[in-house]
Amino acid sequence: MTSIDQVLEHLASNHGRILGKLIDFAAIPSVSTDPAHAADMRAAARWVARALESAGPFTVRTIETPGNPVVYAEWLGAPGTLTVLVYGHYDVQPADPLEKWSSPPFTPTLRDGRLYARGVSDDKGPMLIPIEVARSYFAVAGTLPVNVKCMFEGEEEIGSANLDAFIRDNTKLLAADVVLSADGAMWRIDEPSLTVSSRGLVGLELTLAASSKDLHSGRHGGGVANPLHAMATLIASLHAPNGRVAVAGFYDRVRELTPTERAAIAALPFDEGKYLAQVGAPAPFGEPGYTTLERQWTRPTLEVNGMWGGYTGPGQKTVIPSEAHAKITCRLVPDQDPAEVIALVTRHLESHVPPGTRLSIAPDGHGARAAHIETAHFALEAAGAALYAVYGVHPLIVRMGGTVPISELFQRRMGLDTVFFSFSTADEDYHAPNEFFRVHRLHEGLEAWARYWEMLAETRR
Amino acid sequence: MTSIDQVLEHLASNHGRILGKLIDFAAIPSVSTDPAHAADMRAAARWVARALESAGPFTVRTIETPGNPVVYAEWLGAPGTLTVLVYGHYDVQPADPLEKWSSPPFTPTLRDGRLYARGVSDDKGPMLIPIEVARSYFAVAGTLPVNVKCMFEGEEEIGSANLDAFIRDNTKLLAADVVLSADGAMWRIDEPSLTVSSRGLVGLELTLAASSKDLHSGRHGGGVANPLHAMATLIASLHAPNGRVAVAGFYDRVRELTPTERAAIAALPFDEGKYLAQVGAPAPFGEPGYTTLERQWTRPTLEVNGMWGGYTGPGQKTVIPSEAHAKITCRLVPDQDPAEVIALVTRHLESHVPPGTRLSIAPDGHGARAAHIETAHFALEAAGAALYAVYGVHPLIVRMGGTVPISELFQRRMGLDTVFFSFSTADEDYHAPNEFFRVHRLHEGLEAWARYWEMLAETRR
Repeated sequence: MTSIDQVLEHLASNHGRILGKLIDFAAIPSVSTDPAHAADMRAAARWVARALESAGPFTVRTIETPGNPVVYAEWLGAPGTLTVLVYGHYDVQPADPLEKWSSPPFTPTLRDGRLYARGVSDDKGPMLIPIEVARSYFAVAGTLPVNVKCMFEGEEEIGSANLDAFIRDNTKLLAADVVLSADGAMWRIDEPSLTVSSRGLVGLELTLAASSKDLHSGRHGGGVANPLHAMATLIASLHAPNGRVAVAGFYDRVRELTPTERAAIAALPFDEGKYLAQVGAPAPFGEPGYTTLERQWTRPTLEVNGMWGGYTGPGQKTVIPSEAHAKITCRLVPDQDPAEVIALVTRHLESHVPPGTRLSIAPDGHGARAAHIETAHFALEAAGAALYAVYGVHPLIVRMGGTVPISELFQRRMGLDTVFFSFSTADEDYHAPNEFFRVHRLHEGLEAWARYWEMLAETRR
Repeated sequence: MTSIDQVLEHLASNHGRILGKLIDFAAIPSVSTDPAHAADMRAAARWVARALESAGPFTVRTIETPGNPVVYAEWLGAPGTLTVLVYGHYDVQPADPLEKWSSPPFTPTLRDGRLYARGVSDDKGPMLIPIEVARSYFAVAGTLPVNVKCMFEGEEEIGSANLDAFIRDNTKLLAADVVLSADGAMWRIDEPSLTVSSRGLVGLELTLAASSKDLHSGRHGGGVANPLHAMATLIASLHAPNGRVAVAGFYDRVRELTPTERAAIAALPFDEGKYLAQVGAPAPFGEPGYTTLERQWTRPTLEVNGMWGGYTGPGQKTVIPSEAHAKITCRLVPDQDPAEVIALVTRHLESHVPPGTRLSIAPDGHGARAAHIETAHFALEAAGAALYAVYGVHPLIVRMGGTVPISELFQRRMGLDTVFFSFSTADEDYHAPNEFFRVHRLHEGLEAWARYWEMLAETRR
């Protein structure tokens, strides 16, 4: 029996224990965006540090940042082999709307082979996998096949605002040959895939004020501006009716797809009707001239993520509110610059302020550029081989509509490429109620990471 | 010493006790729009019934409706004189946004001669006045100058939905010569006024659904419609940029002002700059071709009172929500029909549904028509005389932008006119945080109601 077979056997015999650990981990409500969960963030960081300490002879450090700490671990006992830097995050999205959850978001619940809980797919399940793979290697062989550094952050869901400075200040500590991200998601459950690009992200929040206090709509209605009408007009001005972003200059730096790239995307199996049924939408919608996959993967967007003002409770309240609010994020593609996009959107908003209102804008973090890895990269090829060993099929080469700021950060700060090697699947509702993680994917992920490290150990760059 | 002088003296010597009662009354959070306050509604009704029972030989009944009860009282011991029907309401607006209150909304607090609490101006202070005037008349003279019926409802802030049927079913019980409303408000603190018209009201709530669940804006952004964008476009379509309502047919039945009416409004003292400073608005805004007072008093409006969807908490959540919502009310003027206006707005909304979304509309009650009373009405003239006796000036004849459905109901069901005789003032933030009632207005109101009943007793129709 070879070492890898022993490791796989050890992992298989620990499936129940590992699932139990994930249930324990996912019960911590580590919602990074909400200050009310500050203590839970510390608890989650401690949990991760203890998991790493107990896994084997890792050197583990909890490193403070101006926000939530980074949990770092390293084992460098395989001289002459590669060093990989494993990335993941222990923070999760907010759980609201709570009433739409079938079981409480922080009471992990097994139903039909799925574990339901906020954060279980993004990213607690996927990030637990390499920790447990290391535990099995240490238990069986006393060593790992490659040198492993782990870096688990607690601010991914709020834009990883402190990560840039952290990487800048710790390039020596983090030095590696490649980044392996346990974050990200395969696009579909029945087709293993590897992701070669992800979109960037910038955000801002805007407020339109029309009066210094809420006004009675009987006494004042017709007299002064209603900021909700103004907000509707302003938000409506951001898109053409056909869905194209109407902000001047927004598309100027966008790198158009080559005919080859378009053909590769068109060749992927994608059933639009099935997709629409899955999300419960009556029709696709968006920028004309591009397929749905092209729009989601390779075109920038401007999305309002929240809009509110006035009375939103049950019944009627005849008020003209003093203010209206909206949150906006843009997904970016190569070669858009986050700061420039914020400037363009800001200029658009400022030049479209409806009469009788005052605009204020708060940028939401500094954003992240889009990221890209070459298909022929050694670590991407090894990842493909590992997936082939587990699934018996060659993975599809796909792109990601979402944003994982780390790949751009590691590229810019350290010249490192990132391979997304996550066993989350894009349909697991990870930013919506009833997030889940498939238990069989946990098992497949354990095998795949074990094989991946083995294959990387055999790689000569 | 005449009877009226004794009554006024008795009232004056009870100012402190009466203020204490108002503090007690205003501490009950009788928010009719919120089902969570159902028990408080019952408590407020009991409080009113007990106040009437203790005031004198009233026959008091708490009469159930499908919603909150009507507290009814009568004393018919003055045969040969008029019978007046006093109207008021014991329910209040919601208190949110709570964080904008300087003192808790249901902990009535005295500051600088003002009593701060939700509902203290609309309508608990004003409706307590006739009860306490009756108490003093009974204490001093054992009788009232006229026959008095009181009808205090608990659903005014939610459109008085059950009042129509109540009046229809109780025309005998309620029979009177005129309705005296303790609800309504004088338009300005330094100029006593009488109101001859009020606007009507209809409302609806709409929802735009784009998908069956909240979607991650990274994975799905650009693929399907965002209901917040769609809601912005739909709401923006309801008005022309200049503020005129863009719903086809909306103005068709509106009775235009006569040149005489326009001149009367123009002759009123109204300082637009002062008004804008008071509400903290940078400029007036609304339908072109009309002055600000004309727009607020005599022109119909369509106002969004609430609009919401997506993530509205602190920080960022990159979600495309499944739904967006809005609440709309229209203020109506003669001769608009509430049902017809709802039909017109519904038709507009249905014909402007943005692509990729589904619209649903829920009408909010059946609405109320605008109301009007002739300037030469005997009870309006007596009211003017009473105000002259208290203030030493003739009251201004003004209009009301708000809605008091009862005047239209009493006119339609019983042929009765309504005089608004409230000592609330329009600047008392009664649908906003920090609602207050001026203590000196409580005192003036007590004197004015005592004089008003006396003068009505001398009236021969």
